[in-house]
Amino acid sequence: MLDLPEFSDIQAAQKRLAGHIALTPCAKSQTLSAMLGAEVFLKYENFQFTASFKERGALNFLAANKEAHKDRLEKGVLAMSAGNHAQGLAYHAQRMGVSATIVMPKFTPNTKVEATRVFGANVHLHGETLEEARIYAEGLSQERDLLMVHPFNDFHVVAGQGTIGIEVLDAVENLDAIVVPIGGGGLIGGISLAVKTLSPDTRVIGVQAERFAGAYNDFNQVTPAKSPNRVTVAEGIAVKEPGTINKALIQRYVDEIHTVSESDIERSVFDLMEVEKVVAEGAGATPLALLQKHPEKFQGQRVGVVISGGNIDMMVLSSILQRGLVRSNRLTRINVEIPDNPGAMSAITAIVAEHESNIVDIQHQRAFSASSARATVAELVVQTRGSEQEQKLIQALEAAGFPAWT
Amino acid sequence: MLDLPEFSDIQAAQKRLAGHIALTPCAKSQTLSAMLGAEVFLKYENFQFTASFKERGALNFLAANKEAHKDRLEKGVLAMSAGNHAQGLAYHAQRMGVSATIVMPKFTPNTKVEATRVFGANVHLHGETLEEARIYAEGLSQERDLLMVHPFNDFHVVAGQGTIGIEVLDAVENLDAIVVPIGGGGLIGGISLAVKTLSPDTRVIGVQAERFAGAYNDFNQVTPAKSPNRVTVAEGIAVKEPGTINKALIQRYVDEIHTVSESDIERSVFDLMEVEKVVAEGAGATPLALLQKHPEKFQGQRVGVVISGGNIDMMVLSSILQRGLVRSNRLTRINVEIPDNPGAMSAITAIVAEHESNIVDIQHQRAFSASSARATVAELVVQTRGSEQEQKLIQALEAAGFPAWT
Repeated sequence: MLDLPEFSDIQAAQKRLAGHIALTPCAKSQTLSAMLGAEVFLKYENFQFTASFKERGALNFLAANKEAHKDRLEKGVLAMSAGNHAQGLAYHAQRMGVSATIVMPKFTPNTKVEATRVFGANVHLHGETLEEARIYAEGLSQERDLLMVHPFNDFHVVAGQGTIGIEVLDAVENLDAIVVPIGGGGLIGGISLAVKTLSPDTRVIGVQAERFAGAYNDFNQVTPAKSPNRVTVAEGIAVKEPGTINKALIQRYVDEIHTVSESDIERSVFDLMEVEKVVAEGAGATPLALLQKHPEKFQGQRVGVVISGGNIDMMVLSSILQRGLVRSNRLTRINVEIPDNPGAMSAITAIVAEHESNIVDIQHQRAFSASSARATVAELVVQTRGSEQEQKLIQALEAAGFPAWT
Repeated sequence: MLDLPEFSDIQAAQKRLAGHIALTPCAKSQTLSAMLGAEVFLKYENFQFTASFKERGALNFLAANKEAHKDRLEKGVLAMSAGNHAQGLAYHAQRMGVSATIVMPKFTPNTKVEATRVFGANVHLHGETLEEARIYAEGLSQERDLLMVHPFNDFHVVAGQGTIGIEVLDAVENLDAIVVPIGGGGLIGGISLAVKTLSPDTRVIGVQAERFAGAYNDFNQVTPAKSPNRVTVAEGIAVKEPGTINKALIQRYVDEIHTVSESDIERSVFDLMEVEKVVAEGAGATPLALLQKHPEKFQGQRVGVVISGGNIDMMVLSSILQRGLVRSNRLTRINVEIPDNPGAMSAITAIVAEHESNIVDIQHQRAFSASSARATVAELVVQTRGSEQEQKLIQALEAAGFPAWT
């Protein structure tokens, strides 16, 4: 029999967490509300100290175990995680004087290793795959008698994440729906239990990346399973399937599960930066991505959106920004055929300047594409104000005798 | 005689603003505090609805004038601004049913024009320079009998910005210092008046971009003036000199004024994104830049840092991210001489892969740099974990017979 948490376990977690976890803002976004035709409330779990909700479950696990048997934490705790769970656990373990060991697969980026070591955790880099790391972690846990803290399939971890549900309902009256990312399901498991207990009419809606859609497939009985398990910008929810505890909670309390694409997620990360001035990680942006993809599902409703975390690689973020500028035609690539004469490039750049566009990059392709050996194709990357300006620029280049195309 | 605001004017502003302006968070940053050896409290004015503090002054101006003479706002207000003042004024004018006209120079980016038009303002694009736009705005104001709202040199505007000082002192007990960006000086004028009234021992420190250092030069009597007035990433404070009201307040209440460089500012924008998960504009990051440049000035002290706004072009932000990765050696350019043999590039990329570095870009330079016509220099842009890994990679390439250098 599965030992499922009940609402009283979430209430107990809330008492344990009080004062040790940020009571993160849950703020109405005027701009997103107007854009989406709904009242959108953003719950900013990216403003936790280690920038994700994972602290809640980790701290509840530590505090509950300490209450139950003071000596159970004596030898320390262990987790296998390359991400937010590792940081959340390491931080609260250090704060409570508990030794923490974290197993990460070898391919873990160094920034994540350092972000965990900074809290005094013993980091073991082991295994070429997550599965190898997991097997190693289990062996180590038995060998050294360390208490294993599962990142999502754990009674106390789930109860800890559920405290977000209470906080959102405290902050927003008459909530029609709450939208939550799903990877292993610990977050939505806890939140759905809390929300359906306190406000049974509030719809609980889960979102997955379509590239890791285990919970979606299971919940919607999709056959054959639509789950390529490919690399995703939402690596925080790149989990093959939810834990058994969470499957049971999802079956009982969740109303709908949907998927969003990589470009849906990127757009939401971009918009959260441009509009709300906040940094969300891919997983944390999936709920907004669902609202942006299907605004019709939420018309006129009061919707809570859980931004689960903000730990995103700065390289990936920079790439999301540039791709967002391309998507919105603010950064565009125009090919121009340039005759092999002195002054031709000068004439072309003057035309670009007259159209108040900034040239970001110029590449010449002499061997390819040009119609004559006496011509070059230059690829201009330019900043524009959108597709209208782009079209005007192309027309002006053509009118001046330079074949141009995107 | 200059009519300078007094503390009671800021208190009056606070009453007018209550409920119409976000009471923005003023939160201690644990990570920045640890990094800097001080207790750092961030006042997030980038979380105002139009993403800057400018709403405070604009709203106080509107509300105070409406109180004084109900019909004074009847014909509407006018401002010359290409930035945050325009949006702040347009938003609150619309909310209060006041017609707003905004004059912007012709070179204003379209995103800023649209961000102002969205609040129903009449935007006039006029003038090749700020000065031409200003002269046009004054003419228009007289011709149409519109009340001109100066962005910083105005009694009510300064009093409105001063409310931030009260809020920071309400949030942080025993504040040793508060650090504030200076452009036209409206922000520090108001804040310094509030802070020195409520807490005379709190140091008030101003920061300017070294490329626009008018207030710095004036305050520190720098001769010849160190103020090249060149393009800066902190365009929100790119003002030649503070207004007369603010000069007087600065002289009376400000303790120190310093400058920070473009790279200082970029680093702080980067760190606010990576560490705090928030987007600040260049001007808004200057106070943190000063703390990072001169941590010794703030050792062990409780310091308020005013993040004045978050309106930054996404293209500029993307560039700041990439430059930040280069600065921290997480993105690096390695030149490799490649013999003109099949398989050479494959061997090189295999070495990069063994060192767990990601190749972001490869450029070939056949005509330049190579020591032989039978060789090419390839410029590899790779992601690394820092300078140690970069050096190991170069050594491995050299050991395999490929001359390599950064």
